Amino acid sequence: MQPLDWLLIAVPAALAIRFVPAWKNDTLLFFVAGLAVVPLAGWMGRATEHLGARAGPGVGGLLNATFGNAAELIIALMALSQGLIGVVKASITGSIVGNILLVLGAAMVAGGTRFPRQTFNETAARISATSLSLAAIGLIIPTVFHIAANQQPGGWSPQAEQRLSVGISAVLFATYIFSLVFSLVTHKDLYVGDDHGEHAGEHTWSIGRAIAVLAVATTLVAIVSELLVGSVEAARERLGLTEVFVGVIIVAIVGNAAEHSTAVTVAFKNKMDLSLGIAIGSSVQVALFVTPVLVFASYLFGRPMNLEFSLPEIAAVVLSVWIMSEISGDGECNWLEGVQLLSVYLIIAILFFFLPEPPHVRQGPRSTEPATTHQGQ
Amino acid sequence: MQPLDWLLIAVPAALAIRFVPAWKNDTLLFFVAGLAVVPLAGWMGRATEHLGARAGPGVGGLLNATFGNAAELIIALMALSQGLIGVVKASITGSIVGNILLVLGAAMVAGGTRFPRQTFNETAARISATSLSLAAIGLIIPTVFHIAANQQPGGWSPQAEQRLSVGISAVLFATYIFSLVFSLVTHKDLYVGDDHGEHAGEHTWSIGRAIAVLAVATTLVAIVSELLVGSVEAARERLGLTEVFVGVIIVAIVGNAAEHSTAVTVAFKNKMDLSLGIAIGSSVQVALFVTPVLVFASYLFGRPMNLEFSLPEIAAVVLSVWIMSEISGDGECNWLEGVQLLSVYLIIAILFFFLPEPPHVRQGPRSTEPATTHQGQ
Amino acid sequence: MQPLDWLLIAVPAALAIRFVPAWKNDTLLFFVAGLAVVPLAGWMGRATEHLGARAGPGVGGLLNATFGNAAELIIALMALSQGLIGVVKASITGSIVGNILLVLGAAMVAGGTRFPRQTFNETAARISATSLSLAAIGLIIPTVFHIAANQQPGGWSPQAEQRLSVGISAVLFATYIFSLVFSLVTHKDLYVGDDHGEHAGEHTWSIGRAIAVLAVATTLVAIVSELLVGSVEAARERLGLTEVFVGVIIVAIVGNAAEHSTAVTVAFKNKMDLSLGIAIGSSVQVALFVTPVLVFASYLFGRPMNLEFSLPEIAAVVLSVWIMSEISGDGECNWLEGVQLLSVYLIIAILFFFLPEPPHVRQGPRSTEPATTHQGQ
Repeated sequence: MQPLDWLLIAVPAALAIRFVPAWKNDTLLFFVAGLAVVPLAGWMGRATEHLGARAGPGVGGLLNATFGNAAELIIALMALSQGLIGVVKASITGSIVGNILLVLGAAMVAGGTRFPRQTFNETAARISATSLSLAAIGLIIPTVFHIAANQQPGGWSPQAEQRLSVGISAVLFATYIFSLVFSLVTHKDLYVGDDHGEHAGEHTWSIGRAIAVLAVATTLVAIVSELLVGSVEAARERLGLTEVFVGVIIVAIVGNAAEHSTAVTVAFKNKMDLSLGIAIGSSVQVALFVTPVLVFASYLFGRPMNLEFSLPEIAAVVLSVWIMSEISGDGECNWLEGVQLLSVYLIIAILFFFLPEPPHVRQGPRSTEPATTHQGQ
Repeated sequence: MQPLDWLLIAVPAALAIRFVPAWKNDTLLFFVAGLAVVPLAGWMGRATEHLGARAGPGVGGLLNATFGNAAELIIALMALSQGLIGVVKASITGSIVGNILLVLGAAMVAGGTRFPRQTFNETAARISATSLSLAAIGLIIPTVFHIAANQQPGGWSPQAEQRLSVGISAVLFATYIFSLVFSLVTHKDLYVGDDHGEHAGEHTWSIGRAIAVLAVATTLVAIVSELLVGSVEAARERLGLTEVFVGVIIVAIVGNAAEHSTAVTVAFKNKMDLSLGIAIGSSVQVALFVTPVLVFASYLFGRPMNLEFSLPEIAAVVLSVWIMSEISGDGECNWLEGVQLLSVYLIIAILFFFLPEPPHVRQGPRSTEPATTHQGQ
Repeated sequence: MQPLDWLLIAVPAALAIRFVPAWKNDTLLFFVAGLAVVPLAGWMGRATEHLGARAGPGVGGLLNATFGNAAELIIALMALSQGLIGVVKASITGSIVGNILLVLGAAMVAGGTRFPRQTFNETAARISATSLSLAAIGLIIPTVFHIAANQQPGGWSPQAEQRLSVGISAVLFATYIFSLVFSLVTHKDLYVGDDHGEHAGEHTWSIGRAIAVLAVATTLVAIVSELLVGSVEAARERLGLTEVFVGVIIVAIVGNAAEHSTAVTVAFKNKMDLSLGIAIGSSVQVALFVTPVLVFASYLFGRPMNLEFSLPEIAAVVLSVWIMSEISGDGECNWLEGVQLLSVYLIIAILFFFLPEPPHVRQGPRSTEPATTHQGQ
């Protein structure tokens, strides 16, 4: 039994709200479905780790690296299938930003209440920071292309943008593969090995049990994600929130709640290497693995997604990576550095709160607009 | 008697130029009033330190942190009361940039003439650099908001910009409070304690004497600042200088002359921790304390100031913080690093020298334009 | 005999293609002339080093610092004399970016195949990184000026841009002189001394032989460069490549092939200080020495070049310097960091590959347009 397991009650509740006609309420459904994702993502994570522990360190690490953000990937695929490209991009942004500012900031503050100074492996932190810089560059370049190409009449086209995005996605994906080889094969000593013990408690599940739990939890996440995505439009209109605020702030918090609670807990136990590994590692995974996979998968839905993000999204990612590099570059941290990360998160949240909705918004299955028109800039 | 005290002659001289009709000369008044601020700011600083020494380290540190840039704050309030929002923003920019490039650069060159390699506390330097990065982010976001919101018809409004600015100011101010708790309470051992001895000489003043000196110096700074601000428009037109050049370069040099001479002197004595504390600390104070206070105070004058700076101002702050982070990140410095800081200062000064005046300029008490129209983008 | 000397066959081959009417083929000439530059640049480099070894460390260092990128300087001067300002700027960009991403990335991967972790002098690496940041700032500011000045009607003029560029060039050039004083006089112990032995083999040439080789190689480089530059327009149109892609990617690879092979070879021998010195040092030299010299020299051709680069060029330089600072800031490297540098190079190459040609293109001797119209942004 895990601390957040009482939230599992939200799974049947969400189904009830959706299918009992008298209870139908999209805003409530949005929140209940959001809550339901939290414990399910936790179970998916634990099942993956137990399976990994059975499979041995190499394959286990690969499993964690691939399915660690499976809940977010499923939510994003659901949103993509319904043409909510703006929400998908916003939730990618929010997931990167949320992990390195909110999760890591909260972890540093939590750890800092007990330890005046906490240390971690500087090399591993730097490599993650560089991976995130690389991802930030991958998000900046498509907008640079747009602006520069637009200055020539007829210079910019959605097709060129799309090809550029696929090319960059391929480079990011290849770098992710190389970074797995680095962390799982050639330099595995740099990375902490007590990861599994942390989550799994005393004993490791049997392979059968792990697979069963993984299958059930994944199915439930898929169902709940569909409810979440299906209610997001109605809910956000009701609440007066913009698509980008919902994606960057709300979906990102829901999708990363499991990482959040683990990263804070282990920071409190002075295991900062593990805490950074979870927080930054999750950002890296979203940036270098989930994002390219979504670009490739978007072709299956016949509605290609490019890598062009809006200016506020790019600014949020670049500024987060910048401040995180400064804070993690010396291999030590304290509570004030956690406060500084949280401050940047607050400033970014304020920006997205005040940002007006772009005119397009929903690009549903019936939309005839090209998917790229969302992009500001 | 302090080395710069002979400049006190500029106080009566400024009054004479202002009030003796035959001597009236705005350009001369501007320079003489500027010179008069320098020794007065020094006396305010010393009185604050003696008062702080009497009050004990905690309260003393708080006094220094709050009144350390009082002269700049008074000049800015005077300018704000006369609607010179452009000058206020430019002098904020100039104060941040001037301290980390000109003051710190000169200190590193001065120290480097005697010592091939000087060291300082890396953790304290990094925390200050991160605070400045945070402040830079606070100045970038309002412009990101402006550009992004402007792309939707009717998406941008001065009211939204103002609310966003107040929100960010509150975050910056709160972070400043936290950083005081850090440096004065939880981690005070990271910060140098020989600050007072440095300035105050052999013996500490009585509380009465310190308060009296502080009161007199503050009153004189207020009077002289009014003369300075009152003559700035006429003087800069006469000299063919733009408002932003005067604010960024001239007002900033005048307001920081005291820090400048102290930081260079202590660097020459190989006390780089103290030198960085003065130079970077002063920038942090302007960015996280003076700036939010000015935003809040602007409501008292009925002419709200937002946090949207012009593109050259943002570029100057961001690039300064960037180069400073690189140079201070390893806890050591040499004369070439000082030269590199001074080179960036020169490049920025050249930019502001060639920059043409925006069309608006003076938004005096009679102006009916909204105060935000100044902002270039 | 050097490994690349068989490429010297390309020198007569290029002359034959150019002057034998039946063989005339601009595309082929472009490639053959490009290949011919590679071994000649190597011979120029070796002659400079032998001359330097005879002249003693101080003057020798100065010679290397001044003539180390002579081949690139000659190519750029040829292009400048024919009004190909776009190609010159693109090749400056490509040379900076190529050295710190492609050359250094390949060196780190090569070294990383044999050594899990390689170290280098952190202080020297930081100073080079800061020099490159300074250069990046020098390229950003003219565009900031353009955008900001343009917002005032009549605020921007090519004359003001030109004066700003000359001022910035003077600052960059002065900083280069200071950095030579630092590395050759006051802090020469920070820099590796085994540079000459590396290239020159067992014995040092006589002064007469060194001067003779230098004279012959320089003359041949000048002749071959003229063939290269003369064929670039026809070749790139034939191949469907844009001017900026040719400059940033192809000319930069050709001009830096010698550095490339040496930096990789010494990394393989675990001499990372030397490898970084060659790769980053070459970037610094192009940014702080070659670029200002080209701005000054452009006046001799009556077609002044300013420092305003296009947005993609600025983005490429800034992002390269950013990622390089992150990777080199801790004084150690591994193969994954090399892969990350190469990934950024690939992303930038993809950007320039898809970027459409600006409308102007050739500003030949007959052009009446002002030279500045090339600048995007």
